[in-house]
Amino acid sequence: MPIEAASDGTDYDHGLELRHETVRAIVIREPGGPEVLEMREVPTPEPARGEVRVRIRATAVNRADLLQRLGRYPAPPGAPPDIPGLEIAGEVDALGDAVTELALGDRVFGLVGGGAYAEHVVVHARTLARVPASLTLADAAAVPEAFVTAWDALIDQANLTAGETVLVHAAGSGVGTAALQVAKAVGAQGLGTARTAEKLERCRELGLGEGILVDDDGTFADDVLARTGHRGADVVLDLVGGPYLPQDLACLAQKGRIIVAGTLGGGQATLNLHLLMRKRASVRGTVLRARPLEEKIATAQALERHLAPLFVRGLLHPVVDSVLQLEQAAEGHRLMQSNRTFGKIVLAV
Amino acid sequence: MPIEAASDGTDYDHGLELRHETVRAIVIREPGGPEVLEMREVPTPEPARGEVRVRIRATAVNRADLLQRLGRYPAPPGAPPDIPGLEIAGEVDALGDAVTELALGDRVFGLVGGGAYAEHVVVHARTLARVPASLTLADAAAVPEAFVTAWDALIDQANLTAGETVLVHAAGSGVGTAALQVAKAVGAQGLGTARTAEKLERCRELGLGEGILVDDDGTFADDVLARTGHRGADVVLDLVGGPYLPQDLACLAQKGRIIVAGTLGGGQATLNLHLLMRKRASVRGTVLRARPLEEKIATAQALERHLAPLFVRGLLHPVVDSVLQLEQAAEGHRLMQSNRTFGKIVLAV
Repeated sequence: MPIEAASDGTDYDHGLELRHETVRAIVIREPGGPEVLEMREVPTPEPARGEVRVRIRATAVNRADLLQRLGRYPAPPGAPPDIPGLEIAGEVDALGDAVTELALGDRVFGLVGGGAYAEHVVVHARTLARVPASLTLADAAAVPEAFVTAWDALIDQANLTAGETVLVHAAGSGVGTAALQVAKAVGAQGLGTARTAEKLERCRELGLGEGILVDDDGTFADDVLARTGHRGADVVLDLVGGPYLPQDLACLAQKGRIIVAGTLGGGQATLNLHLLMRKRASVRGTVLRARPLEEKIATAQALERHLAPLFVRGLLHPVVDSVLQLEQAAEGHRLMQSNRTFGKIVLAV
Repeated sequence: MPIEAASDGTDYDHGLELRHETVRAIVIREPGGPEVLEMREVPTPEPARGEVRVRIRATAVNRADLLQRLGRYPAPPGAPPDIPGLEIAGEVDALGDAVTELALGDRVFGLVGGGAYAEHVVVHARTLARVPASLTLADAAAVPEAFVTAWDALIDQANLTAGETVLVHAAGSGVGTAALQVAKAVGAQGLGTARTAEKLERCRELGLGEGILVDDDGTFADDVLARTGHRGADVVLDLVGGPYLPQDLACLAQKGRIIVAGTLGGGQATLNLHLLMRKRASVRGTVLRARPLEEKIATAQALERHLAPLFVRGLLHPVVDSVLQLEQAAEGHRLMQSNRTFGKIVLAV
């Protein structure tokens, strides 16, 4: 039996609401454009054993949300099929049985399999991390997908270490700005690509390494080689995919690692196996969504143990392009589709 | 100043020869067919500080030797440019200064950057491993390339562990037969592909897991899925490359690892990045030759610490197709080109 948030207000004063039969959520009416996102009342979720319910205060828009809205990225089993949203920041407002990790009112953030465009979501307690006191919940909502993707890809998967060079594509994106910060925080040299000089300039203002403008011919490999003394990049974080992959390999250092975390430019690539062998290089694909529970817990631990302290120490900063209201989710999607954003689009709930 | 093998015969009686001004070696006269391999007298190599000279008793033929003979795989710096041969078994017959690891007369085997088709070669002492007493030197020469490639690829790079399934292409090749044995020795399940039923039957006689006949349409992915309960293979060791890679990915398990160690079928491949991401899979290229000294030492340590004990315990066996004399190197190359061999072609020196 879930323990509800105390209604007498004695324990805390975070403005938590009483339990309602329904809560508000953005629902995908049918596959389509931003206009299919509509606010609805949905049943209040109840936490089961080991789970908590979070009163979401902010979420953020991800490319995957746009794909899900178009019907091209179904929610994994266990997530609401029609409510998008992969990351949350909020307060614990109900505890399932046997939850010892968190208490009512705790400020938490983390990744969810879906359903974050809502006032409430229910998740396993161990998949959440505590929000450092120095972060607002709106800022905290800009952190999980971008920084956990970057940390997981660069550190856990590519073993990026101090002194190495990492090439980050789509440097102005949420993941891109996070990856350049993570690289800097661990002593690695960041090189970012973007399609506009303005995004590179903003990266530079954030102290995020060197920028390479990818102009109309779409090439960057020669620039990367020139800026690394022809050694190449040790790690590439690629969110573009198809047309970039052959170039990633061409400007990769010996024993370099390419991590493919997105396919904005296309999902088919040509791979030169001779070069892959000669460089003893690797290409790895990664997604955060649809991981099994134990790996979701591991990412929450990375968020709490590795990333949160770096935010506290001021080595990492959420990069927020804009804060909209949850009701403006459709506008948030249009904004992301415009490719003119820099950093994350947060939706306040 | 090198210490020569004692000529009074008091220390050992391995039939070591006295030092000559020249030794015999197979030299690539010019790029071309097997007929360009000719026996010549070449200067006797002298070991420098930290090096030893080995009186080679046997070497073996590798695909790379054929490519080098054709002028398509130049020797790395430091290796003789015109004497092929990547692996040796023999006795230490001269020590450079400061060598403490080995003594004159020690039976050793290992990988060399080139120059193994000869009576003598000089290498760094730490890049050699001791031959177990249970192996003849002819058998020992069939071990280094095949088993170190298999160990390095499956264990060190792909982290193959007990209970997993590995798909090995070209199962009847030197590396293929070694990989299936290594897989079995560490508790993994081996699945091998070959283009003839006879090779699969010979694998079966060696107890080397299940075989999949790749017939004229060149497909195997459905078979692999069917034999793994549609889970797919955790690791693929691919020596074929180009046409096989898309299928490798199609029949790969979640978080599977593809290691490309050869491109017999072509060096360009198409990579489905969506599938790579969804499976969170990786593709890695590997070569043994031209590694830096510290990694050559690491492979020698794998040979001595991990592989040699398994030969002693009878869990691994050299697979020798035929033993020719060094003078017959051209015939050895023709035999390998025929694709009718099973296991290694050894050249006795």
